[in-house]
Amino acid sequence: MTQSIEATSAPGGAAEGGEEQYYRGLGSLNVEPLWRNTDPRLLPTEPRSQAVPYVWRYADVRRELMTAGRLISAEEAERRVLMLINPGLAPEVETANNLYAGIQLVLPGEIAPMHKHAAAAFRFVIEGTGAYTAVNGERAHMHPGDIVLTPSWAWHDHGNFTDEPVVWMDGLDLPLINKLESNFFVDGPEQAQEQLRSADSTERLYAASRLNPAWKTWDKPYSPLINYPWSVTEQLLKSALDEWVGSPTDGVIFEFTNPESGGPIMPTMGAYIQALPAKMHTEAHQHTSSAIYHVVRGRGQTIVDGEVLDWSQHDTFTVPGWSVHEHINTENEPAVLFSHTDIPVLKALGFYQERACVRQA
Amino acid sequence: MTQSIEATSAPGGAAEGGEEQYYRGLGSLNVEPLWRNTDPRLLPTEPRSQAVPYVWRYADVRRELMTAGRLISAEEAERRVLMLINPGLAPEVETANNLYAGIQLVLPGEIAPMHKHAAAAFRFVIEGTGAYTAVNGERAHMHPGDIVLTPSWAWHDHGNFTDEPVVWMDGLDLPLINKLESNFFVDGPEQAQEQLRSADSTERLYAASRLNPAWKTWDKPYSPLINYPWSVTEQLLKSALDEWVGSPTDGVIFEFTNPESGGPIMPTMGAYIQALPAKMHTEAHQHTSSAIYHVVRGRGQTIVDGEVLDWSQHDTFTVPGWSVHEHINTENEPAVLFSHTDIPVLKALGFYQERACVRQA
Amino acid sequence: MTQSIEATSAPGGAAEGGEEQYYRGLGSLNVEPLWRNTDPRLLPTEPRSQAVPYVWRYADVRRELMTAGRLISAEEAERRVLMLINPGLAPEVETANNLYAGIQLVLPGEIAPMHKHAAAAFRFVIEGTGAYTAVNGERAHMHPGDIVLTPSWAWHDHGNFTDEPVVWMDGLDLPLINKLESNFFVDGPEQAQEQLRSADSTERLYAASRLNPAWKTWDKPYSPLINYPWSVTEQLLKSALDEWVGSPTDGVIFEFTNPESGGPIMPTMGAYIQALPAKMHTEAHQHTSSAIYHVVRGRGQTIVDGEVLDWSQHDTFTVPGWSVHEHINTENEPAVLFSHTDIPVLKALGFYQERACVRQA
Amino acid sequence: MTQSIEATSAPGGAAEGGEEQYYRGLGSLNVEPLWRNTDPRLLPTEPRSQAVPYVWRYADVRRELMTAGRLISAEEAERRVLMLINPGLAPEVETANNLYAGIQLVLPGEIAPMHKHAAAAFRFVIEGTGAYTAVNGERAHMHPGDIVLTPSWAWHDHGNFTDEPVVWMDGLDLPLINKLESNFFVDGPEQAQEQLRSADSTERLYAASRLNPAWKTWDKPYSPLINYPWSVTEQLLKSALDEWVGSPTDGVIFEFTNPESGGPIMPTMGAYIQALPAKMHTEAHQHTSSAIYHVVRGRGQTIVDGEVLDWSQHDTFTVPGWSVHEHINTENEPAVLFSHTDIPVLKALGFYQERACVRQA
Repeated sequence: MTQSIEATSAPGGAAEGGEEQYYRGLGSLNVEPLWRNTDPRLLPTEPRSQAVPYVWRYADVRRELMTAGRLISAEEAERRVLMLINPGLAPEVETANNLYAGIQLVLPGEIAPMHKHAAAAFRFVIEGTGAYTAVNGERAHMHPGDIVLTPSWAWHDHGNFTDEPVVWMDGLDLPLINKLESNFFVDGPEQAQEQLRSADSTERLYAASRLNPAWKTWDKPYSPLINYPWSVTEQLLKSALDEWVGSPTDGVIFEFTNPESGGPIMPTMGAYIQALPAKMHTEAHQHTSSAIYHVVRGRGQTIVDGEVLDWSQHDTFTVPGWSVHEHINTENEPAVLFSHTDIPVLKALGFYQERACVRQA
Repeated sequence: MTQSIEATSAPGGAAEGGEEQYYRGLGSLNVEPLWRNTDPRLLPTEPRSQAVPYVWRYADVRRELMTAGRLISAEEAERRVLMLINPGLAPEVETANNLYAGIQLVLPGEIAPMHKHAAAAFRFVIEGTGAYTAVNGERAHMHPGDIVLTPSWAWHDHGNFTDEPVVWMDGLDLPLINKLESNFFVDGPEQAQEQLRSADSTERLYAASRLNPAWKTWDKPYSPLINYPWSVTEQLLKSALDEWVGSPTDGVIFEFTNPESGGPIMPTMGAYIQALPAKMHTEAHQHTSSAIYHVVRGRGQTIVDGEVLDWSQHDTFTVPGWSVHEHINTENEPAVLFSHTDIPVLKALGFYQERACVRQA
Repeated sequence: MTQSIEATSAPGGAAEGGEEQYYRGLGSLNVEPLWRNTDPRLLPTEPRSQAVPYVWRYADVRRELMTAGRLISAEEAERRVLMLINPGLAPEVETANNLYAGIQLVLPGEIAPMHKHAAAAFRFVIEGTGAYTAVNGERAHMHPGDIVLTPSWAWHDHGNFTDEPVVWMDGLDLPLINKLESNFFVDGPEQAQEQLRSADSTERLYAASRLNPAWKTWDKPYSPLINYPWSVTEQLLKSALDEWVGSPTDGVIFEFTNPESGGPIMPTMGAYIQALPAKMHTEAHQHTSSAIYHVVRGRGQTIVDGEVLDWSQHDTFTVPGWSVHEHINTENEPAVLFSHTDIPVLKALGFYQERACVRQA
Repeated sequence: MTQSIEATSAPGGAAEGGEEQYYRGLGSLNVEPLWRNTDPRLLPTEPRSQAVPYVWRYADVRRELMTAGRLISAEEAERRVLMLINPGLAPEVETANNLYAGIQLVLPGEIAPMHKHAAAAFRFVIEGTGAYTAVNGERAHMHPGDIVLTPSWAWHDHGNFTDEPVVWMDGLDLPLINKLESNFFVDGPEQAQEQLRSADSTERLYAASRLNPAWKTWDKPYSPLINYPWSVTEQLLKSALDEWVGSPTDGVIFEFTNPESGGPIMPTMGAYIQALPAKMHTEAHQHTSSAIYHVVRGRGQTIVDGEVLDWSQHDTFTVPGWSVHEHINTENEPAVLFSHTDIPVLKALGFYQERACVRQA
């Protein structure tokens, strides 16, 4: 197999009519001259996210959600979600560059029918005790502060058989999987899955120890845990606050892990809970990963590229990738933040970078 | 820390003025009702790439490139590239969903100054023998069919000190790293790097055996090889064609690997060379990964979602993710295709899916 | 470099004097003829351990240990250990093929001075509450049922400042590391380590959740946990017994894991806790790994290659590799067994094999 | 489940008759007092191998082997091996602590029937061209300098259909697998395996490039390559000697790798080829791994713990673990050494240690 090619003298034709005709010609061939390209993203000194820092106030979102409770029938309950749209990314359904969050209301007696998708999701419970999410044949009951996983391709359905409304935050990797054009959606054969195990059995098996059941094998890329219950998380935070300073940039911060790998709960999203001690003002830093924060309790500020985000309980806010940011707990009690990020994605691809910065305030 | 919240009766205010006012109100809060969303990408039965199948004919691209050789000064040589823009993705600089390819001309005596970036790149040489790419202090001389790596954050510069024009295809993960908002670009301190090792020494060390130098350690996520020379690739293809049928969907296909991991050359791109035996008509399949093909030799067709792409030597064509495709070698000689894909990305994130399909022709 | 060698005609000299002289000659050259070898281990149909099944009765061991308490001065306290010697392996200090166990008594007021070694060790506490093991600057207080790690190269010292005697089982990979001729031993600079952290802080941080502290990095091959406390283990066993059948060969069995990897606590030893429900008679199987069992509570039998081992609380017994074995809980209460094995070693080297067998009783 | 136990007063009985009676009593219980143990291996300052440095001269071994060619019938050909027994380890069949080597003679027309075993093996060819080893259905033809793998559980048989005697060195992990009591041996159903592929096809596919066949999947823990041919190895050594200094302790040294993992050829043995430039005297070092060296060409000395080992072409010598050693090439031509080691074992278990030392000569 030879590669040799006679270097033909370039036919001038295209250029006779002058440059403009030449460049028009290029367009018709679906090629574009790099030397005329002015898109700054081709040679960026450093990343500049199109997302903007933003806070969604729970008072507003909850009010509108309750109104939606009257507008939206039980049949549509599974879609009674207010999607948090990043003003810098609209009209894309994106809360941060690779991450989505929405606030969902499920009223007493409502269910969300069985389905599965390639996109990975979790729920972080804001209000209401006792509704369930069923995953692969097991119902996990949800309490405020619980994080409940519905991973890629896992069958799941939800139901609220209590007498109070339930509100949770949905977290998904939808913006990422859409960019990667890899999403699939499958409706289930029934409304609700058959229950193969007693409710919450995986939580009892995995949540509160470092022991793994040796009679089971696990070959999935995500955590076998369905629910990381707040009762366990809260106890850990309390004891850790008594003796650890934690990270200068994030305080006492823990990652929810996959017991089978020690790594993130899912290949596409990492989930964290952090406590900022009373009056803590963290050091500033920046990293290529994006984050969506949900305020579990407390009140404070996060300064992002010079912009001050004020937050209080149940607000949701986002910090774009590579933005310089620092957290301030303005109160005399610890503030607790839940967050999810795309760190696992950036690390898997070699794109994670982090840098300490000078404080802005 | 308690999570309990009194379920306040929803203030009707927002809804008094009727639904329209309500929905306008949502917009002002940067939330969007999922129940009114009609974006099919939120619940896709299966992926549908926005990219389209397309062939860039080398005869056209080469002609315009030679014209550019007269238009563009030596100073701009590093930017004398015709970028292959996928008609379905324009104006984005994307050839496939996560992949970019451009055709570059470097004339005798020209150089492209030293720089580095977080985006990973390689060059596949089309025409011209003897120009070099210098990577981290070593010059690799380029010959038609060579694949030369300039990985993420690796310093590199190019030069053509021969008396013939050199044409190569640039392959980059730029569309991916831009979506992930993680690119950095740094200009080098000099025009050309100091030469720390004799030219092509890494090729001699690594390219033609399964032995690794035990006096070196390697901690990078990409291959230590700078050049995978055509001389080695060609010999392998010849002998493999004599005795292997290969894959029903891709014929005799090899992946260029990282000798330190056995995996892909880079975390974000896989590179392959394949030979379709005379008259081979492959079985049809689809996978979530995208591919850009460059025809090293031969002539044939690739049918993509029913559309026929005719290709011959040095043409470049793309097959979008999840499209049903099959290859036909219309000639009595083997056809050879080089391709690069985003398979490593999709596998790392758990998004790779593949399915056999019914032939379209 | 040529390899060619003239095939010289073999000088008959050595054989003139007949075979016997020939074979004597071989000995003097330190070569041995394979064709005369009769060592069955060179071509074994399957493995046959030199270890034998054996039970060490706690009543006996404890009695002798208390006597040793009078014989052995406080200065020698660290060596007041009765090593459990497998009758089939004596005089080697081995309890199973790759594993060692000894029973140690530490009296009130005694300490074992600071040291470290390449061999990995743990303590499983049998009697006495409140003595400590200090590891890398942190004291872990010990309670019956706790498993306390002193991993490879980790500084450690022990002390009993309570008013009751403490008895624990030492578990080490000494037989393995001795076979691999890789052990090192270093005495510490002081009697006791400086306390760098508050006592038991690692237990509070890691033991009772699936969250990892994100402000710490861990690059060791073993678990960061020092103590896996019985309080956590017991609670898990109780709840698991209520709803799981577990494994047909081992009942409800859990592995103590490394939170950073999801794997075994150490590269050379795996540790397990299992509960056999009332009257359970397990199915028989065999595996290449060896195990040392310590009876935490209950009474029963283990049949090993047809031999019946009767065991009750605090006895220690061993099951050799590839022996056919089955467990019987003879009582109406759950029996609880702690065990340590060489599974991680055999799996890392590709030597782990397992096979179901016909029951012997 | 309570762990509490009343600390019974120790029954004095056993001690009444004085210490001697007490210690006799311990023996009858198969326990041994650590405080009386004098085995230095329990607390070694550093490892001290029981193996000794030793050279087996090829002139001697070959002469005796040729004599064996007359003594041993063709039926026993498979066992016509002179096993190299380390004087420090005799009567164990061990050449180094975890490694075995033997020299085998196969005469024209002889075959070694099909079999497989858990122990991993390879052959390094010393004399004779054209005999074959068949592995999993493929015959690999052997030439001086080739290394041919017969991995754990792989069916293999050998034959010499040429008209010259063939001599090779067998390398096995037998001492290790015996210590781990994990070996299995299975005779094949026929004399010779059915040939499923054309001879040497895997060598053509894998040996001389960094490309992996993408139409095959490989899930074994060892290399898919059967033969690493000398022709490829020799060419690499030649070119590397022209431009690399290599390691100060080992010269220009390469590891034979598994193309699917980038790691060692097998989980239990690593194989290396190294060239010591003319007159090179390496720096001294020590490591916990053991090695068996075979001299491919040249003449020199290796000083091991002060003892001088003189070696020349085709001699085999061993360097025990943790011995201080340095190599001297006494000639004006490069010396070439093949070696196999237990490095992969020690690294997998966390036992690998290395240290630079002061030269002994």
